[in-house]
Amino acid sequence: MNALLWPGDDRAGELFGDTAVLTAMVSVETAWLANLAVHGIAPRAAAQPLAGLTDADDVPGIARAAEAAGNPVVPLVALLRERAHRLDAETPRWLHRGLTSQDVLDSALMICARDTSAAITAELETQVRTLAELARAHRSTPMIARTLTQHAVPTTFGAKVAGWLHGLLDAADDLAATVFPAQFGGAAGTRAAVVELAVLAGADNPVATAAAVADATAADLGLRAAAPWHTARTPVTRVGDAWTRCTDAWGRVANDVLVLGRPEIGELAEATGDGRGGSSTMPNKANPVLSILIRRAALSAPGTAAQLHLAAAASVDERPDGAWHVEWQPLQLLARHALGAGRQASALCTGLQVHPERMRATFDAALPGALAERAGMRELFGAAPDDDPARYVGAACAVVDAALERARPFLDGER
Amino acid sequence: MNALLWPGDDRAGELFGDTAVLTAMVSVETAWLANLAVHGIAPRAAAQPLAGLTDADDVPGIARAAEAAGNPVVPLVALLRERAHRLDAETPRWLHRGLTSQDVLDSALMICARDTSAAITAELETQVRTLAELARAHRSTPMIARTLTQHAVPTTFGAKVAGWLHGLLDAADDLAATVFPAQFGGAAGTRAAVVELAVLAGADNPVATAAAVADATAADLGLRAAAPWHTARTPVTRVGDAWTRCTDAWGRVANDVLVLGRPEIGELAEATGDGRGGSSTMPNKANPVLSILIRRAALSAPGTAAQLHLAAAASVDERPDGAWHVEWQPLQLLARHALGAGRQASALCTGLQVHPERMRATFDAALPGALAERAGMRELFGAAPDDDPARYVGAACAVVDAALERARPFLDGER
Amino acid sequence: MNALLWPGDDRAGELFGDTAVLTAMVSVETAWLANLAVHGIAPRAAAQPLAGLTDADDVPGIARAAEAAGNPVVPLVALLRERAHRLDAETPRWLHRGLTSQDVLDSALMICARDTSAAITAELETQVRTLAELARAHRSTPMIARTLTQHAVPTTFGAKVAGWLHGLLDAADDLAATVFPAQFGGAAGTRAAVVELAVLAGADNPVATAAAVADATAADLGLRAAAPWHTARTPVTRVGDAWTRCTDAWGRVANDVLVLGRPEIGELAEATGDGRGGSSTMPNKANPVLSILIRRAALSAPGTAAQLHLAAAASVDERPDGAWHVEWQPLQLLARHALGAGRQASALCTGLQVHPERMRATFDAALPGALAERAGMRELFGAAPDDDPARYVGAACAVVDAALERARPFLDGER
Amino acid sequence: MNALLWPGDDRAGELFGDTAVLTAMVSVETAWLANLAVHGIAPRAAAQPLAGLTDADDVPGIARAAEAAGNPVVPLVALLRERAHRLDAETPRWLHRGLTSQDVLDSALMICARDTSAAITAELETQVRTLAELARAHRSTPMIARTLTQHAVPTTFGAKVAGWLHGLLDAADDLAATVFPAQFGGAAGTRAAVVELAVLAGADNPVATAAAVADATAADLGLRAAAPWHTARTPVTRVGDAWTRCTDAWGRVANDVLVLGRPEIGELAEATGDGRGGSSTMPNKANPVLSILIRRAALSAPGTAAQLHLAAAASVDERPDGAWHVEWQPLQLLARHALGAGRQASALCTGLQVHPERMRATFDAALPGALAERAGMRELFGAAPDDDPARYVGAACAVVDAALERARPFLDGER
Repeated sequence: MNALLWPGDDRAGELFGDTAVLTAMVSVETAWLANLAVHGIAPRAAAQPLAGLTDADDVPGIARAAEAAGNPVVPLVALLRERAHRLDAETPRWLHRGLTSQDVLDSALMICARDTSAAITAELETQVRTLAELARAHRSTPMIARTLTQHAVPTTFGAKVAGWLHGLLDAADDLAATVFPAQFGGAAGTRAAVVELAVLAGADNPVATAAAVADATAADLGLRAAAPWHTARTPVTRVGDAWTRCTDAWGRVANDVLVLGRPEIGELAEATGDGRGGSSTMPNKANPVLSILIRRAALSAPGTAAQLHLAAAASVDERPDGAWHVEWQPLQLLARHALGAGRQASALCTGLQVHPERMRATFDAALPGALAERAGMRELFGAAPDDDPARYVGAACAVVDAALERARPFLDGER
Repeated sequence: MNALLWPGDDRAGELFGDTAVLTAMVSVETAWLANLAVHGIAPRAAAQPLAGLTDADDVPGIARAAEAAGNPVVPLVALLRERAHRLDAETPRWLHRGLTSQDVLDSALMICARDTSAAITAELETQVRTLAELARAHRSTPMIARTLTQHAVPTTFGAKVAGWLHGLLDAADDLAATVFPAQFGGAAGTRAAVVELAVLAGADNPVATAAAVADATAADLGLRAAAPWHTARTPVTRVGDAWTRCTDAWGRVANDVLVLGRPEIGELAEATGDGRGGSSTMPNKANPVLSILIRRAALSAPGTAAQLHLAAAASVDERPDGAWHVEWQPLQLLARHALGAGRQASALCTGLQVHPERMRATFDAALPGALAERAGMRELFGAAPDDDPARYVGAACAVVDAALERARPFLDGER
Repeated sequence: MNALLWPGDDRAGELFGDTAVLTAMVSVETAWLANLAVHGIAPRAAAQPLAGLTDADDVPGIARAAEAAGNPVVPLVALLRERAHRLDAETPRWLHRGLTSQDVLDSALMICARDTSAAITAELETQVRTLAELARAHRSTPMIARTLTQHAVPTTFGAKVAGWLHGLLDAADDLAATVFPAQFGGAAGTRAAVVELAVLAGADNPVATAAAVADATAADLGLRAAAPWHTARTPVTRVGDAWTRCTDAWGRVANDVLVLGRPEIGELAEATGDGRGGSSTMPNKANPVLSILIRRAALSAPGTAAQLHLAAAASVDERPDGAWHVEWQPLQLLARHALGAGRQASALCTGLQVHPERMRATFDAALPGALAERAGMRELFGAAPDDDPARYVGAACAVVDAALERARPFLDGER
Repeated sequence: MNALLWPGDDRAGELFGDTAVLTAMVSVETAWLANLAVHGIAPRAAAQPLAGLTDADDVPGIARAAEAAGNPVVPLVALLRERAHRLDAETPRWLHRGLTSQDVLDSALMICARDTSAAITAELETQVRTLAELARAHRSTPMIARTLTQHAVPTTFGAKVAGWLHGLLDAADDLAATVFPAQFGGAAGTRAAVVELAVLAGADNPVATAAAVADATAADLGLRAAAPWHTARTPVTRVGDAWTRCTDAWGRVANDVLVLGRPEIGELAEATGDGRGGSSTMPNKANPVLSILIRRAALSAPGTAAQLHLAAAASVDERPDGAWHVEWQPLQLLARHALGAGRQASALCTGLQVHPERMRATFDAALPGALAERAGMRELFGAAPDDDPARYVGAACAVVDAALERARPFLDGER
């Protein structure tokens, strides 16, 4: 997977790349076949692991062949059937039996989504730990608060970081609440084929046997057992929303770094080195490229996630005529964009350069205007004993402490 | 509130209308002022209820005056100060003290969002009860499943309704999980002004007093006490996502009614009567207007909700330069669109006409093609004893039962 | 029309407000009826002007009644028929004859869109004149160019303004190219009803008579005569795209003002006065509210315009089941947002405060880094005779001149 | 380029694929270098063609290296400099001189966009010819018009196809009006570096020489010479809007095929054969996969195009901090989606199966309701001599003729 026009894509590695999707589809077919055998429907010998039958080189051919059927599962199954003879004579005949294309693709997408979410969560954990340390260190570092671009009142850099932390912790909460259900409903969500196979195999309770196959396959794949959700697309929209919550949170951090890193402000800077931030023509430049690319992802994600909701809203029948198909690529893009941005955000947080002396200088220059609110109150209600401007930060320290308290499970390694 | 170009807007009544927002803003000011007095900061006499000072007639003037400050709170506070003399001489002086515009508007929007969500939840409850009854009644009603617009295999109408139910129950779960935090952070999220007022009032622990004022005001307003979230916009995106989950679910029901209500199919129909569905020129028409308007809302909501995420992603500083302002109207529109669609969906579900005989006729006409999957398996794996085509519905009844089980808390009135 | 949550909405005045839409719908009915008479289909007496039959007070009732038929035309026609007796006994019978709801609403929306576009064009003209003057005045005013937030190389403020001008001129070109077709297709785009009426009236060539009625009505309304476009929605998407091109251009100006108006930079500022930019709690603040509200509109417009394209893409049949209905409110919102932003942009441009001394100071402070590109070339290719840093602005003056040349038709009043 | 999760992506071939972008960037560097020599700035020997220095195998490495600088041009230039020694000793030193990364990437994207637009236009031409033939053949084929999913009044299939044609012709007009400007502005849009090089080379009028280099390079690349547009992104949004106009038009055709191809309606069908439309489990299925995949693209494009407008609206400074970067991948995706959908639409139109007998049967069954409008008028205004229901199609034939007239330049090969 490479993406010339989305710099940083490689940070997502193989996660939710085309090869990963192929691998996941094959693992769904393997696990289902195994459970057909376990539950007495298919012969034991048929249930061979299929993982070795395909590799990354098959992706282009399957991709090309996918148009004819409208999805990549049909050519994949054809390929597997063709090659499975080498495993066992019964395997081609039993492979994919009881499944529909959507079962395989939806389950595979959920596997990829789960793996991506786990990787994103790991980044959030790194960031929370890093920023908690930063918030603690700058709990009382005075800086000017800016509202609507203008100097407002005093705050502390710790309080700003506490705000970043809340965004990240909210995103982590949403990711933790996301579930990844398997999809095993058959052609129309009734599991008719696998029930029929159970009948043919002489099962006492074919419906229960079908459910057992589905639930056991879900368990083997590390997915949640679930009722068929072919046209109730909540699992897709929920994970898309959760990833967008992440990019929202990172975008806000990046925006602050970009503003506060302008040379006239200079209160924050990205770490330099490794040739990062260079210009093709201006040797003087040190561009905040991590923040720029994170901001890019944050501006992009809402529109991409909206495509998932649109797909859900346009669903119809027992499998829709385009509304299913429009989900796949946006989900993949959103996953890779979010993970890439998450890893960039970790690098950003870890390397962040803080310049308290610039914060202080700007703060001092903003006086006495920045205390006009306080002066107004004192005029009305009387003077207070203490006039240190940096003291007009109210509950800033409490704000930091509350964020750190909320972050504690991350710091203690409880997560 | 009227919306000539969004038919059905009036179904949302006054909820999250401009007057409701005004009322909510005034209630925030009142509750804050009361708690300033309760916690010894403001004199008791200052803490008058402000509700009577404004009414719907003030909306246009405040709306017009809102541009100068960029938000409606500044002119509202000016108006309240001007009129509050009639309550108590101290009231104008103390009113809004310790607050920033964003505190008042964000808290007011959360009040309106909470009330709208409650009303939407009530609709979901009605729908779940109605559809559970329908699923039960048609647990075994055979119909043809349609995938990619074409006849696929048999299913039951009950199984289709079970799919609708899962979408609604998912949405209800997300709504139930939504929290509505108050916003009390002052000019820059540090609560500096109210802490200062507590200092001036001689509080032992001014920061704790400020927190007590904030938390008590939240409680009085029925909102969750929370750390300032001026630039961590999760509360807004979460509720937007949850409402969109609702319109997604209703859209999918409406799409099915629209397809199955085409005259050539005729398996479902909207209730007629009350002049609904008429044409301006064709007396023969009975248009499925509820479904059409619901589908409209479902197509629209994802793009509107994406604006909320974009706002969150573009946040910066201690109050952003446009990213906050761009949230308000989309949030209001999404709320009213969702609630209106929810009430239309309740009417749609309650009045839904089901034609099992048309379902059966289409089903019969789809044979034997609709059993081709079964025939293929039998060819491979041997014949089953029972050949009733309507029996090739697999676990359809179990699918219904599982959905009903999940819906039980709604049916038992536990929710 | 008021919009509490979209400050500045009143700048759009009545244009494309609900009352304007009502008025436009009535004017369509009037003009059609007149042309039925002119072309010998309806009796002369029937063709009364209907304008006096309704007023703004009818909007709420029509809006409420619109749900039953799915659009506001059906209740409007009912109302007009009920009241038209007072004009002439034949009027109710002939009114709306040969039209379908979509004819009336689409034509009315085009009237409102045309009027809004004209008003937006007037703003663009003002802005182009203002900015051309500014570009000329600051043709050689040195400032530092900023790329990726960092100081890059020298430029002039005139060159920056030239860039703004190109955006505005592009938008003006697109607006000038927009056409506003009338919609007169009857129930299914075949004009069957009016052709039938022409038959009944004994027309020699009923199809030609129907076309004559349609084309004359279009001309009377100031719209382009056109083939029915009930399901080919280009007129709607084109105007939406053109308006978004405007908000794009204004957004870019506002973003520059917001960045360059940060106190640490201080190179630009909005005009102050009229209480604009005040804070509810901080008397020191002078917020750039025009830029903030313009930026808000620019962030919002793309998602709104996308709804129009989605509607076009989801069109089906001879009138779609929701895809038509979802167009109306976004079109109205986009119109009012764009016009409001346009008028704010005119105020912004007219009042813009430029601080060349701050530009110069920043420029000087950016040396010698800002000349590193030049230094690199000189190292490679030899020194040039002139070392004035402000001379490293290349073709900046030519860039200004080219933009002024392009703006000339606006300056000469040729437009 | 393969895209496992966007079936049909391969229909776009190499157009706007990553390798095509790389090739275009190299061609920009080559043409610029050549013109530096032609205009006396660089030595003739330095101006070597660079095309052979890179190939598709370089894409992954450049993509990976692109993050450090935030764009792929910086590592590409490094690679070219490293390898250009084999061409001429002067080439590495002169290569890219006077350019900025954005010049190279923007110009390359315009080259790819132009090539994609040309390919899309060719598809539109094919479709217009095919559909014009179809409209002519079915000029009088009666069918029932459907509005809001219900039977309305008679129409002809030719009139429906005429509506499709207008959508395609509108899109073709917009594509024909699109221009593709080169970008040659240097680091900050002032062309300072190339002007400086012209100074060092002793040019009489260095600014004019710089303009001559830029304009000649544009001409060599087949792009429009233009003022720098680094932050005035109209060229990007215009082409995105034009492509979306195409997918809108194709989506509307696909939607009609999907509805009219439902088995209960059966008036249209996709061509079968080549294994297209098969199911992984149901041998009876013949799915309209072309229409499904076209509809998918149509649902997706508006949100993708909106990202381009958002990028334009968020532009700032002389090169923005993320708003530029967010454009590239959506532009590429939109291009490939549109071209793929265009080629699918050509296949759909060419192979479309029309069933006039089913149209007629449905039409007959819709009587007399479908004539209720006519009956109502006759009741009011008297009977007409002819009662053939198929005659109540008004100007349907004229509608066809007008569309054919508009299509004539395509039919005559004038385009």
